[in-house]
Amino acid sequence: MRMAELSQRSGVPIPTIRYYQREGLLHQGQLTSPNQAVYDDAHVRRLSLIRAMVEVGEMPIAAVKALFRHLEAKDADEYTTLGLVQYALVRDPPADTDLATQSETVDRLLTELGWQVRPDNPARRLLASALATLDRLGQQDLLGLLTPYAAAAHELAETEVPLALDRQGLDQRAEAVIIIGVLGDAILSALRKLAQEDVTTRALSSPNGPPGGA
Amino acid sequence: MRMAELSQRSGVPIPTIRYYQREGLLHQGQLTSPNQAVYDDAHVRRLSLIRAMVEVGEMPIAAVKALFRHLEAKDADEYTTLGLVQYALVRDPPADTDLATQSETVDRLLTELGWQVRPDNPARRLLASALATLDRLGQQDLLGLLTPYAAAAHELAETEVPLALDRQGLDQRAEAVIIIGVLGDAILSALRKLAQEDVTTRALSSPNGPPGGA
Repeated sequence: MRMAELSQRSGVPIPTIRYYQREGLLHQGQLTSPNQAVYDDAHVRRLSLIRAMVEVGEMPIAAVKALFRHLEAKDADEYTTLGLVQYALVRDPPADTDLATQSETVDRLLTELGWQVRPDNPARRLLASALATLDRLGQQDLLGLLTPYAAAAHELAETEVPLALDRQGLDQRAEAVIIIGVLGDAILSALRKLAQEDVTTRALSSPNGPPGGA
Repeated sequence: MRMAELSQRSGVPIPTIRYYQREGLLHQGQLTSPNQAVYDDAHVRRLSLIRAMVEVGEMPIAAVKALFRHLEAKDADEYTTLGLVQYALVRDPPADTDLATQSETVDRLLTELGWQVRPDNPARRLLASALATLDRLGQQDLLGLLTPYAAAAHELAETEVPLALDRQGLDQRAEAVIIIGVLGDAILSALRKLAQEDVTTRALSSPNGPPGGA
C-alpha cells in the first residue's frame, strides 16, 4: 500500500508517520521508485502499537524509542530483553527530593511477599513515590490497601504472563508485554471506577445507610 | 505562615501557587495587611491534593477545576457529589471515530456482572476505547483478561469504598475518593509491573523452561 492508505488504515496522520520514521520508530517502506515507497501489514501493526503506547499509555516518544531500541538490539537474552521492554513502559515518577524511607518500605514489602524483583526495576521507584505522596497527604491509613493491591496484582500477573510467554517469537512476546502493560493499566483503571460506583451505590442505598454514616 | 513557607512546606513553587489561586483551585490567605496574607494547614493540604492529581494523576488543570467545582457547589446530595468527583478523575480517552461495537461490549459486560453503573459514567467510554485499541491490534485473545480484571477491580472496591465512606464529612470522603482514585491507579500499576517480573522470572527459570517455549 501507499503512504495515504497506510495513514488511513492506521489512523495516524501522514506527517506523524514521517516523524516516527525520522525518529526510527517505524522502518522505511520498500522503494518502488526514488520518490515512491510501498508499505505492508507490518507497518500498520507497528503504527497501531505506537498509537497504543502514545495515545493510551501517554508514553513520551523517548520512552517508545528506548523500548524499540532494546527490542531490536538483540544483544541480550530473551529474559533480559523482555525485562528492558517492560521497564521502558514504567512512567517516570514526579521528581521527589528524598525517597529513602519509602524505598525501604518497598524493599521490605517485596521481601515479605517473597517476590523476585531486580534492584533496577523502575516500578520500585514509582511505588516509593506514590507512598511519599500518601505520607505528604497524611493518609497513612490508606497504606492498608497495599496488601490487597499486591495480592490482586500477583494473581493477575499469573494469568497475564503466560499469555505473553505462550506466544512464538521474541517480537510477539514483547508485543504482548507492551499491550498487557499499557492497555492492562487503562482497562483496570476503568473497571476500578465502574466497580467503585457499584459498591458505593449499594452501600449508600442499603437499608442501614452508609457504613460509619450518621 | 507566609507564602514562602507555604511554598516550602507544600513543595509547590510560589508562581504555581499564585496560578492555582487565580484559577480558583486554592482559596486566598487571610489578609494581615493590603499586601500580606497568611496561610494555614488547610492550604498545605489542598496544595498536596492538587499535586497528587496534577503530578501523579497527570490530570489537566481543567479537570481539577471541574472536580473542586462539583465539591464546592454543594447543590447535590452527597452520593451525586461523590460520583461527580469520581467522574472528574477519569481521563479522557483518545478521540476515536466509532466506539459503538465496543460500547455494546461494555454494556453487556456490566449487565453480566450485575454492576449498578449510571449510563454517564465516563469510565464506560474509557473501557470501550481500550477495547477498540485491542481490536485494532488484532489482540482479541487478550479479551480473556477482562473477567479476571473485573473480578479483581470489584474485590478491591469492596475494600476501598468503605475506607472512603467511613470518614466523617463530605470533604474528607471526597478527599479519600480522589486519593484512592489517583494513587490507587499508580500503586496498582507499579505493583503489577513488579508482580509480572516475579512471575516471569519464575517461569523462565523453572526446570521445564517457559510455558509454550521451544
